[in-house]
Amino acid sequence: MSPTVPRIVMKFGGTSVADLDRIRAVAEKVRKQVEAGCEVAVVVSAMSGVTNRLVGYCRDLSPTHDEREYDSVVATGEQVTSGLLAIALQNLGINARSWLGWQIPLRTDDAHAKARIVSIDGTALIDSMRAGQVPVVAGFQGIGPDQRITTLGRGGSDTSAVALAAALKADRCDIYTDVDGIYTTDPRIVTKARKLPRITYEEMLELASVGAKVLQTRSVELAMKERVRVQVLSSFTNGPAPTEGHLPGSLVVDEDEIVEQEQVAGIAYSRDEAKLSVRRVPDRPGIAAAVFGPLADSNVNVDMIVQSTGDDGTTNMTFTVSKTDLARAIASLESHRDTIQYGELQTDDDVVKISVVGVGMRSHAGVASTMFRTLAERNINVQVISTSEIKVSVLIASEYTELAVRALHTAYGLDAA
Amino acid sequence: MSPTVPRIVMKFGGTSVADLDRIRAVAEKVRKQVEAGCEVAVVVSAMSGVTNRLVGYCRDLSPTHDEREYDSVVATGEQVTSGLLAIALQNLGINARSWLGWQIPLRTDDAHAKARIVSIDGTALIDSMRAGQVPVVAGFQGIGPDQRITTLGRGGSDTSAVALAAALKADRCDIYTDVDGIYTTDPRIVTKARKLPRITYEEMLELASVGAKVLQTRSVELAMKERVRVQVLSSFTNGPAPTEGHLPGSLVVDEDEIVEQEQVAGIAYSRDEAKLSVRRVPDRPGIAAAVFGPLADSNVNVDMIVQSTGDDGTTNMTFTVSKTDLARAIASLESHRDTIQYGELQTDDDVVKISVVGVGMRSHAGVASTMFRTLAERNINVQVISTSEIKVSVLIASEYTELAVRALHTAYGLDAA
Repeated sequence: MSPTVPRIVMKFGGTSVADLDRIRAVAEKVRKQVEAGCEVAVVVSAMSGVTNRLVGYCRDLSPTHDEREYDSVVATGEQVTSGLLAIALQNLGINARSWLGWQIPLRTDDAHAKARIVSIDGTALIDSMRAGQVPVVAGFQGIGPDQRITTLGRGGSDTSAVALAAALKADRCDIYTDVDGIYTTDPRIVTKARKLPRITYEEMLELASVGAKVLQTRSVELAMKERVRVQVLSSFTNGPAPTEGHLPGSLVVDEDEIVEQEQVAGIAYSRDEAKLSVRRVPDRPGIAAAVFGPLADSNVNVDMIVQSTGDDGTTNMTFTVSKTDLARAIASLESHRDTIQYGELQTDDDVVKISVVGVGMRSHAGVASTMFRTLAERNINVQVISTSEIKVSVLIASEYTELAVRALHTAYGLDAA
Repeated sequence: MSPTVPRIVMKFGGTSVADLDRIRAVAEKVRKQVEAGCEVAVVVSAMSGVTNRLVGYCRDLSPTHDEREYDSVVATGEQVTSGLLAIALQNLGINARSWLGWQIPLRTDDAHAKARIVSIDGTALIDSMRAGQVPVVAGFQGIGPDQRITTLGRGGSDTSAVALAAALKADRCDIYTDVDGIYTTDPRIVTKARKLPRITYEEMLELASVGAKVLQTRSVELAMKERVRVQVLSSFTNGPAPTEGHLPGSLVVDEDEIVEQEQVAGIAYSRDEAKLSVRRVPDRPGIAAAVFGPLADSNVNVDMIVQSTGDDGTTNMTFTVSKTDLARAIASLESHRDTIQYGELQTDDDVVKISVVGVGMRSHAGVASTMFRTLAERNINVQVISTSEIKVSVLIASEYTELAVRALHTAYGLDAA
């Protein structure tokens, strides 16, 4: 077989295989890709709702259930879908067979319920594809060193697909989902949001971590590490099979593949932040450790941090934590009040984090100042600022979310024509 | 560990594990058996309804689905139950783990969807039990020579349990079900029906094949071949764990274990029969072959046969077939009318087969004559008779079913005091 035959991994999430009609529609998409002359491997999630039901069973029986048993129970969701899709493909005349994690084998470590992939033996799958067969792989699952079924943690099917694409040296990993790509911002807020034809791994990671929940962060990290080209596209639209000349979704790729780099790729927001201010702390060496040590011990992740020193020899530490960690953070700080010696603890969970993301800002000055000026013109007060090489984030009152996102979208020239 | 520790295989069917509450109740039963000082292995079916749903999916997608994919899909039902029961047992403080067919391994042939067990490696399970753990085995499934999941066909979990009991050299295989044992006849017809404390394999096979649907025929054949002692008992009653001194259900065993053999163990009936009469056939050599050859070619099983010769040089062949085969049998005979040269074809599906079963009739004369006399006294006309070493069956009009069963039950002294 010619080495120029494109090899594509197609991954379908739970809503894409929600019922038998959807599975038939997925089979049609796979058929088109095969008939376009590609070698195709498919990765599937459980039918939507199934995983939650199985997880619920385990929790009901024992809140502290054995994760090895949990894995064996929950992995059945993907096992069912892989078999059903193989049947649906055969019914269209496509040679197909299902593969379970232990059959490939896809080996993981022994961290049941949140296992990490150790190795994938692609031999059998490559042989199968070269013989004209479509492997339909149950996502989310592998086999541990104890020869028992493992699962990769929630959303692990994206990671399965990317890891498989790497092992199979696939030209592309197409992640079919319920959105048709990555947008410059949330289209529900900004009607002029544009679909990005291409975005870098780094940008995607920043966008994912601040609220654009299209791809699992872990799968993007793996794609970046293994240089797997990932396309995000909709499973709910019809059309010809994607080709390199016509990719309907958004391609997540290495920076090298993006010729004309925009300053800013997108604007993200996260309502999951809560602000804490530890006020009137005696300003002395080691004060940051006194505040953040106990939080780390309580397993609270701290995100943005700003310290402001007053005239009276005291300082204020303001920072953000995830809303779900807020109660734990407060308890931790209050139990260490004597050692930290703060005057007051203020909290505010009526805040939002707005982030401007783009690898282009490395070479373009003025991205941050555009952001501050734009917000200032709308009289939006910036409470906390944090920056990374390719991101500027600000914390503002949540009532300004839509106003800020729209203004920034326009200011960076992202609005669709 | 002392070799005198009793080793028990406990098998729970679909209604016994229908929901989480039932699974918790099963865990309690297992706990009691463990605490009674036994080594215990458990075999489970899918939660009731699950297998039918999965089978329905496969059929919906393709009536001619790949049986290898069907097996992978359908086997998930038992996989879920085995994991959930292991969790429920651990929650009671019992050391337990689930085992899938491929993990044991339980090897089968490659007849997917109706595989036969080739071998069971009991090593790992025995080690597990000796270490104080309860293996919870997913029934109905194995691994084929192609390293893919196989299933044993409907009702295969009974067969799994019996085969496992043989491989583990268990003292007993307890089949928990929704009835509390094997009865002398159907208690819905005869209120004085008695539960049989013991019954031989041979009797159980005859009773199963004529309508007492408690155990799969195949599992009884295997139990007889491997000399596995099988107890049928209810999973819906509470009580102490069974011991050899107190077995609440019915024990299916070798004849040697039954000291005082009754003439007749039970009375069975089957409404699944239809009668055909091929009338006025020229009485010549080879006429039976002319009639029954085409039926065999059409895959019709013939059960009871009687031939009666008239004065005019013709003969009548009367026989029974399964009701589901009746249309096919008629079509076959009509298409061979020229070679058989019969005068008339009569059919009657308003009939019932009543069978009296007992290994004791080998040594007791007069069992058949008691049957005929009893029926004659009620003016019930016997249409066809067939006998085997341990069974006498008669075909009568179906309206007499209850009358005949009750009368025979009394005549053979089976009524409860």
